[in-house]
Amino acid sequence: MKKTLEELSNLVKGEVIGDGTIVISGVMSIEEAKEGQITFLTHPKYNKIAKKTKASAIILAANPENLEKPLLITQDPYLAYAKIASLFHIRPHETLGVSSQSFIGEGCYLGTDISVYPFVYVGNNVHISDRVVLFPGVYLGNDTYIGEDTIIYPNVSIYEKSRIGKRVIIHAGSVVGSDGFGYAREGEKVFKIPQIGIVQIDDDVEIGANNAIDRAAFGKTWIKQGVKIDNLVQTGHNVTIGENSIIVSQVGISGSVQVGNNVTLAGRVGVAGHLKIGDNVIVGAQSGITKNIPPNQMVTGFPAIPHRKWLKAQASITKLPELRKRMNNLEERINTLEENKIDTPNCDS
Amino acid sequence: MKKTLEELSNLVKGEVIGDGTIVISGVMSIEEAKEGQITFLTHPKYNKIAKKTKASAIILAANPENLEKPLLITQDPYLAYAKIASLFHIRPHETLGVSSQSFIGEGCYLGTDISVYPFVYVGNNVHISDRVVLFPGVYLGNDTYIGEDTIIYPNVSIYEKSRIGKRVIIHAGSVVGSDGFGYAREGEKVFKIPQIGIVQIDDDVEIGANNAIDRAAFGKTWIKQGVKIDNLVQTGHNVTIGENSIIVSQVGISGSVQVGNNVTLAGRVGVAGHLKIGDNVIVGAQSGITKNIPPNQMVTGFPAIPHRKWLKAQASITKLPELRKRMNNLEERINTLEENKIDTPNCDS
Amino acid sequence: MKKTLEELSNLVKGEVIGDGTIVISGVMSIEEAKEGQITFLTHPKYNKIAKKTKASAIILAANPENLEKPLLITQDPYLAYAKIASLFHIRPHETLGVSSQSFIGEGCYLGTDISVYPFVYVGNNVHISDRVVLFPGVYLGNDTYIGEDTIIYPNVSIYEKSRIGKRVIIHAGSVVGSDGFGYAREGEKVFKIPQIGIVQIDDDVEIGANNAIDRAAFGKTWIKQGVKIDNLVQTGHNVTIGENSIIVSQVGISGSVQVGNNVTLAGRVGVAGHLKIGDNVIVGAQSGITKNIPPNQMVTGFPAIPHRKWLKAQASITKLPELRKRMNNLEERINTLEENKIDTPNCDS
Repeated sequence: MKKTLEELSNLVKGEVIGDGTIVISGVMSIEEAKEGQITFLTHPKYNKIAKKTKASAIILAANPENLEKPLLITQDPYLAYAKIASLFHIRPHETLGVSSQSFIGEGCYLGTDISVYPFVYVGNNVHISDRVVLFPGVYLGNDTYIGEDTIIYPNVSIYEKSRIGKRVIIHAGSVVGSDGFGYAREGEKVFKIPQIGIVQIDDDVEIGANNAIDRAAFGKTWIKQGVKIDNLVQTGHNVTIGENSIIVSQVGISGSVQVGNNVTLAGRVGVAGHLKIGDNVIVGAQSGITKNIPPNQMVTGFPAIPHRKWLKAQASITKLPELRKRMNNLEERINTLEENKIDTPNCDS
Repeated sequence: MKKTLEELSNLVKGEVIGDGTIVISGVMSIEEAKEGQITFLTHPKYNKIAKKTKASAIILAANPENLEKPLLITQDPYLAYAKIASLFHIRPHETLGVSSQSFIGEGCYLGTDISVYPFVYVGNNVHISDRVVLFPGVYLGNDTYIGEDTIIYPNVSIYEKSRIGKRVIIHAGSVVGSDGFGYAREGEKVFKIPQIGIVQIDDDVEIGANNAIDRAAFGKTWIKQGVKIDNLVQTGHNVTIGENSIIVSQVGISGSVQVGNNVTLAGRVGVAGHLKIGDNVIVGAQSGITKNIPPNQMVTGFPAIPHRKWLKAQASITKLPELRKRMNNLEERINTLEENKIDTPNCDS
Repeated sequence: MKKTLEELSNLVKGEVIGDGTIVISGVMSIEEAKEGQITFLTHPKYNKIAKKTKASAIILAANPENLEKPLLITQDPYLAYAKIASLFHIRPHETLGVSSQSFIGEGCYLGTDISVYPFVYVGNNVHISDRVVLFPGVYLGNDTYIGEDTIIYPNVSIYEKSRIGKRVIIHAGSVVGSDGFGYAREGEKVFKIPQIGIVQIDDDVEIGANNAIDRAAFGKTWIKQGVKIDNLVQTGHNVTIGENSIIVSQVGISGSVQVGNNVTLAGRVGVAGHLKIGDNVIVGAQSGITKNIPPNQMVTGFPAIPHRKWLKAQASITKLPELRKRMNNLEERINTLEENKIDTPNCDS
């Protein structure tokens, strides 16, 4: 694919400085870009490298006087880059049709222009919408539904009755719809609670590698539109994750948690069961959430507290041994003062 | 499957109030239940919804005067629900026999009524007992043994010589018997220690999705009867997990740890190598275990301490900056007092 | 395979005490060793068991007067054991050739003596070097390169263009080259940043089960020679891990982190994005790294601080409630002192 700089600028509602008719055939980083590619600059500290780049054009926020290449000026160069790069780098999925080395169950709907690679297993009554791509080793249980343009990478396992939306991406090794972790004890014996709900994943969700997303005990575990989940994340049964929330690697969300919209859970956050996290909340990395978090705030720590408070508390921890020394010293001095005070009445004598 | 309320009551040793002859064909949550289904009530706070349920019968602990449905009274409604739900919700595994799209090695024992899906790989000298189900993408290495009624979900990899008991469930993507993490250094060079032991998983164990259970250096890594492990858990080489213990998601157990019976390790607990955790111990979420834990106690934190002590310490941490201010203030006041004290001798003058 | 004790001693540059002509056919632990096997002793505390071992020879550091077996004396018995065990316990990979139940794309190079098991998918233009073993369910994307003697265990997914070196071992379920986690926001909408770099894994690396190693946004994610990674580790896009570093289970390394050579990240360490960890650094288990760490030190905690300082601070935390009580007590006493001080002027009167 080739586009003129002018066309790219229109796409991102930017402004061209210099020759807008030059033809761009790809994106690349400043250091590695070659002629014919466009690169981007998010910080003035890269200005120096920018002068040396072999890219034919640069996306940036302002026109530093010293760059003489054709430029694409836009308020948010990273966002513009994301949009332009997506133009050039859709993974090439030639339509393969259905491999004779795959297995398709009974009663399935197979849309047009789908790609079913070898060693894909599709159960009974599965709905595969148009342009879906199923990579090798994918397992789709009975009665699953896969929306249009969804891509499922190798060795992903999707249990029965799961419902996956449009334009969803699920990376390799992830598991959707395995049983939630529910047991009842009778003395030492442990009885399994059947998990008879499902998983529903809405449109435009991306799920990283080696995730585990449990099916609901009843009802559904629900990943809403636009959610992005990183690798190795645990999503317990009956969890709801609100629209456009971002869940970073190794997060663990216990059963029945309700995560709001536009929430960010940074790396390795843990959330205890049955809690609510409000819209627009940001939880700092490695935090443990043990209470409901009201909307619109940033919390950190375990138990999580407002981020600033946490920063202060953490700084104090390393000074604890010193604090204890000062305390000992104070106690001695007060002992001395108190002994002297007993003496002072003597001054009256 | 259909059962009368009376039959269900007998199963759980409960008591029927109302018409015991009504026929029940399934279980469901209070909100979603339909006619012909039975639901359950674990807490009086749900009484209000209970009045509106369309279920034909309710399992609960006591007879609140205002519920007029047929009732199944039992001390532990959740446990009774678990048993009744299990009646109705055994995943339907029609016996498939051995798919022609699978691979079976030499010298294998194949029991009766087994299901071997397409794309299952079975090595040489593998023993597959009666009624075992192997989902697509399962790998069984040479000389593995799988007990009766065990279900292995898609894309599970079981390395050579592993021994899996009866009625075991292993969820998708899990790995059993990969090499333990053992190396010896010689200067900068790192030598692999061959891991020549095995993994043994006893009867009635359930293992979640995307687990990693390492084979032993020597001898065996041993998951004992009735253990339940959640998703994304790391079990190191030569670990023993005692009977009926519960290991929650994202826990990491280092090599040679001995976990006792009836232990609960809550979400994301880490255990350092070679430690012993006594029977009936409960370890709170996100804790780090760095010492042996004697039986019959609850610990939390990193390093883990008795749970109540930990709660107090955590509460104190957030007040540390305030404590430091108070300390500064005290020091000033004592300085003043001490200066005054030096002055006081003047009163003698 | 059989070797004389003398031959084994030469291999590890040790010294034989007793009959060097005895024939050894394997290694085993002290407790389980049988005649014909060699065992090893790393600590005098095992001396007692050592007397009872049925092993035909023992590797150890010094000659305790009371052991009468043939002995192999060497400075580092564990290292010697590693080398000797590796002789006897190379997993037997008979050369299988290419299974007719696998899939090989167009334009691939297939080396000599390779083993491609059933249900392996190999994309187009893939280079499979001599003696490579690909277990069932392995996926190799287009344009991947696999070096000589590399072993890839079942259900591993390697995305397009990844480059894997020689003698690499990748355990089951791991994912190499999935998309890095990169998005740009525009209001509530979230745009994916195409990840157009690759993953490069150098010679002699071992990667555990169910890892997730993301491809770079640009350039490469790079695991250098001799690195050993345990199970369930997250390696973000554009991360570099230096030679011979050891990354223990459940570690999470955020994007663009540079880990030096000979670094050890203990279990469940988290590293924030774009940081540098110097050569020879050791990070204690469960730590969170939020700043660059200069070379040659051990740090622990979250945020990580020098290990000794952390130990002291942790010890102080449990004494915080007591510290608060002492503080309250001091304040009361100072109040009393100050009241008295106000009185003391009276002594002048």
